[in-house]
Amino acid sequence: MAEMDWKHTIRDLKGVVLDMCGVLYDSGEGDGVAIDGSIEAVKRLKASDLQLRFCTNETQATREKFVAKLGRLGFDICVDEVFSPAPAAVTILKERGLRPHLLVHDDVVPEFDAVEKTDPNCVIIGDAADNFSYQNLNKAFQVLIGLEKPVLFSLGRGRYYKEMDGLKLDVGVYMKALEYACDVEAEVVGKPSPVFFQSVLADMGIQPSQALMIGDDLVNDVGGAQSCGMRGLLVKTGKYSYRWCLRPQFQKVTAVTPSAAAHAFMPRRLSVATSLSDHSELFMVTEEKPRDESSCTDACIDSVPGDVTRLTQWVQNL
Amino acid sequence: MAEMDWKHTIRDLKGVVLDMCGVLYDSGEGDGVAIDGSIEAVKRLKASDLQLRFCTNETQATREKFVAKLGRLGFDICVDEVFSPAPAAVTILKERGLRPHLLVHDDVVPEFDAVEKTDPNCVIIGDAADNFSYQNLNKAFQVLIGLEKPVLFSLGRGRYYKEMDGLKLDVGVYMKALEYACDVEAEVVGKPSPVFFQSVLADMGIQPSQALMIGDDLVNDVGGAQSCGMRGLLVKTGKYSYRWCLRPQFQKVTAVTPSAAAHAFMPRRLSVATSLSDHSELFMVTEEKPRDESSCTDACIDSVPGDVTRLTQWVQNL
Repeated sequence: MAEMDWKHTIRDLKGVVLDMCGVLYDSGEGDGVAIDGSIEAVKRLKASDLQLRFCTNETQATREKFVAKLGRLGFDICVDEVFSPAPAAVTILKERGLRPHLLVHDDVVPEFDAVEKTDPNCVIIGDAADNFSYQNLNKAFQVLIGLEKPVLFSLGRGRYYKEMDGLKLDVGVYMKALEYACDVEAEVVGKPSPVFFQSVLADMGIQPSQALMIGDDLVNDVGGAQSCGMRGLLVKTGKYSYRWCLRPQFQKVTAVTPSAAAHAFMPRRLSVATSLSDHSELFMVTEEKPRDESSCTDACIDSVPGDVTRLTQWVQNL
Repeated sequence: MAEMDWKHTIRDLKGVVLDMCGVLYDSGEGDGVAIDGSIEAVKRLKASDLQLRFCTNETQATREKFVAKLGRLGFDICVDEVFSPAPAAVTILKERGLRPHLLVHDDVVPEFDAVEKTDPNCVIIGDAADNFSYQNLNKAFQVLIGLEKPVLFSLGRGRYYKEMDGLKLDVGVYMKALEYACDVEAEVVGKPSPVFFQSVLADMGIQPSQALMIGDDLVNDVGGAQSCGMRGLLVKTGKYSYRWCLRPQFQKVTAVTPSAAAHAFMPRRLSVATSLSDHSELFMVTEEKPRDESSCTDACIDSVPGDVTRLTQWVQNL
């Protein structure tokens, strides 16, 4: 049954959506570093007849600066191909006549230039990193608690991400903090919000069943995509190994690299080379929408053991 | 039924437990300020035949410094009468052989002097205030996520408290943040933990039904006390009015001042003067254990309208 579903996915595949941080590159000091094979994976997908978009919860820079950074790392990506939460939030603010108090990274503030911010009637938090001081979080709290009906937007709900010097707390952690302080539920803009994925699909002009999401986050990438009817593929880069490899049920089941995924799922997959044979990882596909990471057990995982050659054979045989 | 319960409470009353911040004083720059009537309320209770203890989630200072501050404000309180979370946490650490990574206020660190802290195998967070920087919270997170079985202690679970210049985020907010980041549940030391209240009752050598808790926090003071079989009384000082007066169901029901509570519930209550007649507040008693603030509706509140004179009459007539 699961294999039949994947057969349809591969037959009907018209577009691929790639997560960025942890899939294309690891962030850290300076620009970070490209992940092995990912620059070639993007090239290969662009050379195929698949549509390609990039979907990120990155809120530490404007899209322009972000794309420029990826360019310096060797990626050929345009601003229009990138979907990120800040522009999506601006659209919502305009539609609803809201004026935000911002608790975000300094470098993403220009995305909100066109938005009225005096006398705020909502709060927006992004991945503010060092701006998440006690003083700044308290200020956001005071704005929220002072509103008759507190409105909180969170640009993503991630728990943490990997930088070159270790794991770092993500915006979701501070979202939970303010939710508890003010007894409100935040509106999440960005992954895993279905609205966010739907905007990417609309831009490609394809149906959910024709799209594959590739990411390193089981909840935000794979789960979010599945909520929209897309297929999700987890890669074994970025935050993956740090959390999962400690759990007994996952020790035998790991995931592919972005490069291997691009190989296996592009239509010209018959031509994939054996140059990736050093990636002797297993292949993991979640078949059920994961509600949260802790609820993911073997039961919702369809594992296809084998190295990249065997993965490619599996895809070809579907 | 409720009045009958209170009749027993008043007849059998042997001890009173007072919350401190928001009941005795408002914190802020310097030592803060004593709340009107509270110095006299403490004197009156001490002069009565009731036992008196103080129960605080204060973790911004050692008990010694904290009591010294209250002395400067005019309160006659001894260190041994004060129960706070840090010493309770030290007891737990020693019992379980745990070595903490501390994310607490600088001034409370000396409470942990006798505890081994190298190679930490748990994390303790208190009301660290400005020490809740992104960098410090991230460090605590990295210690936790690096443990095979993360153990997190939170010195209280309050959402916020009132200082003279406004509301401030409390430790519970950061507890929720780390719980989400690491997918763990914190062990709360301090109010509303039943163990904490039980240690106060044991020190007084009385039964729960013989004790009354007076505080400004419906969940941590009143709810926590009720969980142990004590009665809880909410005062209309501290954080009270900032949150509750906005809710329609509470606009007609407010609470008494600490001074009025001391008057009404001390055994020599027949001698209470009319000097408090300027406090023309209503009287509010929660009869059910509140699970959280949002679940508290009229249904679980037994309100006895009237000014302090009528409140005193109500008590006398029970």
